[in-house]
Amino acid sequence: MSSRAPWLFALLLLLFRPAFAADASKRKPLTMADVLAATQAADWQALDPENTVYLELASGRVVIEMAPNFAPLHVSNVKALAREHYYDGLSIVRAQDNYVVQLADPNAEKPELARKIQHAKRTLPPEFDRALDPKLPFTRLPDGDVYAPQVGFSGDFPVARDPKSGKMWLIHCYGMVGAGRDAPADSGGGTELYVVIGHAPRHLDRNVTLLGRVVQGIELLSTLPRGTGALGFYEKAEQRVLIKAIRVAADVPLTERTDLQVLRTDTAVFKDLIESRRNRREDWFKFQAGHIEICNVPIPVRVRQ
Amino acid sequence: MSSRAPWLFALLLLLFRPAFAADASKRKPLTMADVLAATQAADWQALDPENTVYLELASGRVVIEMAPNFAPLHVSNVKALAREHYYDGLSIVRAQDNYVVQLADPNAEKPELARKIQHAKRTLPPEFDRALDPKLPFTRLPDGDVYAPQVGFSGDFPVARDPKSGKMWLIHCYGMVGAGRDAPADSGGGTELYVVIGHAPRHLDRNVTLLGRVVQGIELLSTLPRGTGALGFYEKAEQRVLIKAIRVAADVPLTERTDLQVLRTDTAVFKDLIESRRNRREDWFKFQAGHIEICNVPIPVRVRQ
Repeated sequence: MSSRAPWLFALLLLLFRPAFAADASKRKPLTMADVLAATQAADWQALDPENTVYLELASGRVVIEMAPNFAPLHVSNVKALAREHYYDGLSIVRAQDNYVVQLADPNAEKPELARKIQHAKRTLPPEFDRALDPKLPFTRLPDGDVYAPQVGFSGDFPVARDPKSGKMWLIHCYGMVGAGRDAPADSGGGTELYVVIGHAPRHLDRNVTLLGRVVQGIELLSTLPRGTGALGFYEKAEQRVLIKAIRVAADVPLTERTDLQVLRTDTAVFKDLIESRRNRREDWFKFQAGHIEICNVPIPVRVRQ
Repeated sequence: MSSRAPWLFALLLLLFRPAFAADASKRKPLTMADVLAATQAADWQALDPENTVYLELASGRVVIEMAPNFAPLHVSNVKALAREHYYDGLSIVRAQDNYVVQLADPNAEKPELARKIQHAKRTLPPEFDRALDPKLPFTRLPDGDVYAPQVGFSGDFPVARDPKSGKMWLIHCYGMVGAGRDAPADSGGGTELYVVIGHAPRHLDRNVTLLGRVVQGIELLSTLPRGTGALGFYEKAEQRVLIKAIRVAADVPLTERTDLQVLRTDTAVFKDLIESRRNRREDWFKFQAGHIEICNVPIPVRVRQ
């Protein structure tokens, strides 16, 4: 183009550059605190109680938002398992540093002792990725990614997309929740759940079904003593951490719910938030990174206002 | 080239492609276990006791390897502070989930109570980056990076380089250790040390001096209860975690040292290890990522053999 129609290029420059420049100069660079202070009620969205589960430990409650757009079978099955009290009395059996904690039935391998399933399913077809649906919201990050052609946010979740293969999938960022599986791809289903408590293990992307993320209470999991067995499994039964229950928020009396709102990711405000993290404007910073990696973008959460 | 000399392109293909193909097909894909099982003594390197410090807690020892090639002033000052017992009796005052733990003098702001410094320095010029020295070893990763033009390993550390600005710097991966500072760039010096216990906070790169990394015992830090104050500071004095001592390994009797070896990063073996993590060959994996991000490459450590 530039060799055939330099005048067109110049015209385009004249038309658009001053507008961009004026726009940029008008706006004071914002910190995340500035962005959040300026949010309106419509910028926040309450968690859907039908797609939120509470993992109840003696130390408190872990609130998990589930992602039916990405793992509909698994989300539905986790709810079914929760509703038949499958998880109640199971344990966190594994805590591997800089990796994951995992809950499971410690007796899963012993047929006579293993927890029975009534109506839910023990295993499901994998939901490692799904068809790329351009109608699903997608706020794309401008800085690329080491692992995927496109990354951004869809709903309240970090998402990768590959237009060439026509697929999209959830990303293993800190706090993401997945369905553990054995060697066969279809051996998971939600009876074992893991939560990422370390640097994003992106090699797990598309290898295992992610179904949600922790929006509150991650520190109850990330501070658990690490298991000393292979893969961080606890070697003694008494080291395991009891799961009091997993409950679907919709089934919990209103007064006992944790009423949270998450900042919407499909808004201009969220784009401002991304920019406030790409280039940190707090006085402490001497150097602006000018880039951000998907798992370093926070999705703010607050008590409903 | 392709339009002017297609024959040259074809010739190059003929010359090189079969060789590459043969080479690749000769070699069985390796898992990390395969790579480590085949290592020789020369692939491992003992920690230098003069550049290793032990952070002694009631719960055990955290072994920190320091990086004099990247932060010579800070490394030297941490050793001087350790040798005059500056750290002994101070505390971990902060544990922020998915971010850092930090040790400091809880009385730093109270002149009459603050720990005195005898011979070491309280503050130092920043060592946020350094001149790119092409003579320093650098095993570059093939998959790029969201934040820096080049990333790889130099010695036992994850390093970024920018040939344009002629700079190189340490990267804030999990387990990296830095010198906390206040707002002025030259207000740090090693009297406060932080350790990354979450997803790599790369926005800190070039904003604060990194001086080493934890090679053993990170779980003693990553499992600490998170502080409930702003930035994860403990709100009550009794929540703080006592630092029994920081000692330079060289000053510790041989029988009391933690005698570790780290896999060298300037070898063909380490390149094999990187490849074994870019494309996971363990049976469990269904999908090969084909890429790896710098903070997902492990640097194996073992007891000296």
